[in-house]
Amino acid sequence: MARARIRCAVLGATGVAGQQFLVALDGHPDFELVKVAASERSAGKRYGDAIRDAGHEKWYCREPLPAAFAALPVEDASTMSADGLDLVFAAVESDAARVLEPRFAEKVPVLSTASAFRYEHDVPILIPGVNGDHAKLIDAQKKRRNWRGFIVPGPNCTTTGMAITLKPLADAFGLEKVVMTSLQATSGAGRSPGVAALDILDNVIPYISKEEEKVERETRKILGRLDGSEGIVPADVSVSCTCTRVPVLDGHTECVFVALKSRASVDDARRALREFAPFGDQRFPSAPARMIEVLDDPYRPQPRLDRDAGGGMTTVVGRLREESTLGGASGVKYVLVSHNTRMGAAKGMVLLAEWLRDAGHLG
Amino acid sequence: MARARIRCAVLGATGVAGQQFLVALDGHPDFELVKVAASERSAGKRYGDAIRDAGHEKWYCREPLPAAFAALPVEDASTMSADGLDLVFAAVESDAARVLEPRFAEKVPVLSTASAFRYEHDVPILIPGVNGDHAKLIDAQKKRRNWRGFIVPGPNCTTTGMAITLKPLADAFGLEKVVMTSLQATSGAGRSPGVAALDILDNVIPYISKEEEKVERETRKILGRLDGSEGIVPADVSVSCTCTRVPVLDGHTECVFVALKSRASVDDARRALREFAPFGDQRFPSAPARMIEVLDDPYRPQPRLDRDAGGGMTTVVGRLREESTLGGASGVKYVLVSHNTRMGAAKGMVLLAEWLRDAGHLG
Amino acid sequence: MARARIRCAVLGATGVAGQQFLVALDGHPDFELVKVAASERSAGKRYGDAIRDAGHEKWYCREPLPAAFAALPVEDASTMSADGLDLVFAAVESDAARVLEPRFAEKVPVLSTASAFRYEHDVPILIPGVNGDHAKLIDAQKKRRNWRGFIVPGPNCTTTGMAITLKPLADAFGLEKVVMTSLQATSGAGRSPGVAALDILDNVIPYISKEEEKVERETRKILGRLDGSEGIVPADVSVSCTCTRVPVLDGHTECVFVALKSRASVDDARRALREFAPFGDQRFPSAPARMIEVLDDPYRPQPRLDRDAGGGMTTVVGRLREESTLGGASGVKYVLVSHNTRMGAAKGMVLLAEWLRDAGHLG
Amino acid sequence: MARARIRCAVLGATGVAGQQFLVALDGHPDFELVKVAASERSAGKRYGDAIRDAGHEKWYCREPLPAAFAALPVEDASTMSADGLDLVFAAVESDAARVLEPRFAEKVPVLSTASAFRYEHDVPILIPGVNGDHAKLIDAQKKRRNWRGFIVPGPNCTTTGMAITLKPLADAFGLEKVVMTSLQATSGAGRSPGVAALDILDNVIPYISKEEEKVERETRKILGRLDGSEGIVPADVSVSCTCTRVPVLDGHTECVFVALKSRASVDDARRALREFAPFGDQRFPSAPARMIEVLDDPYRPQPRLDRDAGGGMTTVVGRLREESTLGGASGVKYVLVSHNTRMGAAKGMVLLAEWLRDAGHLG
Repeated sequence: MARARIRCAVLGATGVAGQQFLVALDGHPDFELVKVAASERSAGKRYGDAIRDAGHEKWYCREPLPAAFAALPVEDASTMSADGLDLVFAAVESDAARVLEPRFAEKVPVLSTASAFRYEHDVPILIPGVNGDHAKLIDAQKKRRNWRGFIVPGPNCTTTGMAITLKPLADAFGLEKVVMTSLQATSGAGRSPGVAALDILDNVIPYISKEEEKVERETRKILGRLDGSEGIVPADVSVSCTCTRVPVLDGHTECVFVALKSRASVDDARRALREFAPFGDQRFPSAPARMIEVLDDPYRPQPRLDRDAGGGMTTVVGRLREESTLGGASGVKYVLVSHNTRMGAAKGMVLLAEWLRDAGHLG
Repeated sequence: MARARIRCAVLGATGVAGQQFLVALDGHPDFELVKVAASERSAGKRYGDAIRDAGHEKWYCREPLPAAFAALPVEDASTMSADGLDLVFAAVESDAARVLEPRFAEKVPVLSTASAFRYEHDVPILIPGVNGDHAKLIDAQKKRRNWRGFIVPGPNCTTTGMAITLKPLADAFGLEKVVMTSLQATSGAGRSPGVAALDILDNVIPYISKEEEKVERETRKILGRLDGSEGIVPADVSVSCTCTRVPVLDGHTECVFVALKSRASVDDARRALREFAPFGDQRFPSAPARMIEVLDDPYRPQPRLDRDAGGGMTTVVGRLREESTLGGASGVKYVLVSHNTRMGAAKGMVLLAEWLRDAGHLG
Repeated sequence: MARARIRCAVLGATGVAGQQFLVALDGHPDFELVKVAASERSAGKRYGDAIRDAGHEKWYCREPLPAAFAALPVEDASTMSADGLDLVFAAVESDAARVLEPRFAEKVPVLSTASAFRYEHDVPILIPGVNGDHAKLIDAQKKRRNWRGFIVPGPNCTTTGMAITLKPLADAFGLEKVVMTSLQATSGAGRSPGVAALDILDNVIPYISKEEEKVERETRKILGRLDGSEGIVPADVSVSCTCTRVPVLDGHTECVFVALKSRASVDDARRALREFAPFGDQRFPSAPARMIEVLDDPYRPQPRLDRDAGGGMTTVVGRLREESTLGGASGVKYVLVSHNTRMGAAKGMVLLAEWLRDAGHLG
Repeated sequence: MARARIRCAVLGATGVAGQQFLVALDGHPDFELVKVAASERSAGKRYGDAIRDAGHEKWYCREPLPAAFAALPVEDASTMSADGLDLVFAAVESDAARVLEPRFAEKVPVLSTASAFRYEHDVPILIPGVNGDHAKLIDAQKKRRNWRGFIVPGPNCTTTGMAITLKPLADAFGLEKVVMTSLQATSGAGRSPGVAALDILDNVIPYISKEEEKVERETRKILGRLDGSEGIVPADVSVSCTCTRVPVLDGHTECVFVALKSRASVDDARRALREFAPFGDQRFPSAPARMIEVLDDPYRPQPRLDRDAGGGMTTVVGRLREESTLGGASGVKYVLVSHNTRMGAAKGMVLLAEWLRDAGHLG
């Protein structure tokens, strides 16, 4: 028997991240986009007009705006009803998320790119295939907050690729320490204001506000252990980051140094990364053929060449080498590229929705 | 009594690094550029014609070509005589350096940007103000090789800024471990072939051949201990690097994580860095007012804004924070910007020459 | 009855343009790539190894190297036999083309991206849909040169987009004068040596050797009139260009000012451009749905957003406005974007081959 | 006898253009900056704090912020008094200029980078050395508006370089037609919002709102003839432009095609451009040694290499060639680079102030 389609809304649909949701939902076999919402300023317009409103192009995806979505009326996110919805994707700033997301979560599940609720005790930060068992917190959350729905955020886009690659290493060898320097793309900052050309051309910006704290905290939570309905005990791994911005459009590059708890050769680590296949034979529409690809060419991964691997959903790893400075029983260092607006944001949340549905969490 | 001026030659004068030597020597109070040499292809032309030979602009410095130098005849480096020279600056590829530099060193001191001799036991890698005591090896080198001159190379341009900032930390607190990721400018690759626009626009290249090994090895040697005339015992510090290339013209950015042997607060480390004044009251023409500048603005240093500090000779540090992941009694992490073709190459070698002269090594 | 497949070779297959031929021929319904050739240096290797030979990535297309082609042995272009071939695509430098192309043309048709033969009297510069009638020169060429095959070059990549957009204007209103400034992508220069990052980052290069002469001459030839078997009488239109290079990876932007012989409003011109459908109902595998797309958004076309329209085969026009300075009965000015390595090079030649086959010129 | 120093204020001092005024006035022999004003948001702070207020670096000039100016209190431009001022430099948006500038002009001269008053009949658009005779309109303006001061704007930054190079050609040979395509730097858009990195990396934006109309109109007005106190009769020259934005930080590149009224060879035109020395032996502090520099290297001018010529005050011309398409008795085409925030904005206005003072217009 065919399953009913899930009726979705996107909050913050006119922003850079929101647009990526529309692309990720275009032609989706199971999810039907029925509502789009944005700020009051855009409300009342058709979506196609709203994104053209400022008088110059504002559609930021390489793919064209799906024609069916251009005609959708934009609703005011602050007053939109949850009626007729099975699921809400939220792509709004953290301040707005704090107000809007609970209002919808009273009635329907909310999957969010915002950080507003990531650090609450009854809220898991889910990456499908990495910490699916944390989804058990959802029931506790619903019960405790007396909601029919729930809020599940994805991680910060910089956390995503690192957590995905650390997971098989943690499972096989145990993690002791992680040191990471990121070279992040400009699209991660959105566009309003985003990164000014005057700031980034011929330049590097060595600081992204709050980013390092997020990555350090989220990584430990995602790799942590679910403690009954009590929440998550952060993984016992020390994480230290420096996050920088570089003149790249899309695709975060991360240079990772890892100390492991047990002995592992570079070949052992390569095998663990390559064999990471958390979904087994199961195929989700937005899942890539391989969660992790490991390249042997020392000049890879490069963000421009590798960000679109697996439709932007594969984390591409290269330069895998032995690391002995950090300590631990053994260690590896590597470079990864992860698409910050695909797996690291909207499309990653759609994959999460597919996984949650399969796991029975979407009703 | 006025000291006699030192008569210099530049080998490899037509390349990107060689040009920087000409700029650094223009109007120098003590050094007089009397000869320029390049490959056979350029020999016989006037310098100004040789760099214009390919029919399109080939002078890469922001400063104009010093008029007096444009008229110098370019000699063939492989046959040029050392007669009439007191000093040779060499800016040639490593293979050429291996042949050319000893030939000149038989008669006169050779200061080199090439890596050819950096790892020989009787050859110090000198950074003035950092490891001046290693200059004592020069006498042993002359004696052992039976040369009237000697070869002293500077470090790889990526080593320079890191070694300068590690020195005051090592002296004050002791170094245990260093993890570093570099974001290097395209000018570091020279121009023939250099980095192709097609490779680096909207991109990061995560590998620079042999760079990481050089940085790890040179850092330990520079911070090492002179063992009589026997050579240098590398410092007992573990160093691990990932070196990347980013779309920046000039100025290497380095994200450094350091574990220290004794307890030090971030303020202690800041003070040690700020107070690093190895030349005391002595003023060398090419030395910056401050060897290290520490900025408190979290968005600094940036290569475009900070590479020219102190005429490109100051290492600019920012984002100084506590680091506890690496281990050690305490730790700090920071970001530095160092001008790769100024302090990190030609002008750094001119400063070295000024220091060596003062120390009596230039005869 | 199914038509036999055409057996093709690509000369210069390892270069940037050659690689684009492989992508354009991958999975082609009518053309089968059976041989690849390059310089002696690559000969004897498998194609996949040859492009990886320098030790760092050398496959420049966004699409992956077609697996079937990776296994093809690379032959030496200077000695490769034409046996078993129906067609040769040549993507070699002009000097090599002058020697290689006639050798193959003795036996099989040669379609070339090189300029070597573009200006010979019995050689048409063909753009399918624009000047197909010039193909009649092919018979004269074969006869005169006593060849079984022939040489037909495509235009310079900068000529392509301009000639395509001028064609419907010429047909409807007559051309009097054309002034054009191009902002060309770096991929147009190939990669060896190509454009150095040091030259183009934060910069514009206002000159491309021989480019302006080519565009001016080729435009008049392509829009000219076939004079029996005597050759082509250049169109009586004056063309003046300035060609520049900008920090863009792919996609040439051209700012065109046109004086017309008869009166035409901007709406008339827009209609002529939009309705340009030279192939009627006929569908060629590599032809775009629309040869020309006209956008009304004043901020378009942009090379990054529009270069891939129609699979890189559509010329995208915008900013269509009245132009009265040049003179003429009326005039228009506009901006176009044309993909320089797709329609402007390899894939444009494959479309030409499809068209020539349909017209009976491939035997 | 030493002349008294002119006491100046800068309106809009915290913006990108305003900052350039501070750099241009630092250490000025005749002008003393005594007041800085900005919006209410910054008022009450010290200047150095106001530009650091947003928590990340906001000083955009390569030169450091002059220390003396960092301590100046920022006044609210809407309430600041003109008392104690001899001159006001205005660097505010056009809407603000329309309100603020007349209020100050009642009492003191106002030199403005805004377009608000450029097209009024009694307001000249002055470029010192190009149309100084238009300054005679100042008296008529003061009389008609009953002001003790006056408003004189400079041209749009894209007009500046073109008008300067057209002036000697107009004087020597007469202008008939001008066609121009600009490749403009991102700094021309200021920074709030300015050009987003997401819009311009690997891209060209083919439209700048209102820019083309400004350039066409201003060029004719600047090159026009003063008709007594009645205003300026625009020059009888037809001007047509396409203005684009490219990924360049500073320095507008303009490709100019000119039809002349009388016969002139390329050498004649080169001579006219090179000999353009409107100030004779007079030396103004901000004037460059040469108003126009003509380069013979076909690969020049380039914005990164040539924007700083003459301290950013020289217009650098290259690629001077014959132009015959446009018509006219003869013609030339060329490429120019003009620094859009130096000669094309703040420093150009300071030079204007120096010239006006010398001409007796500053009282």
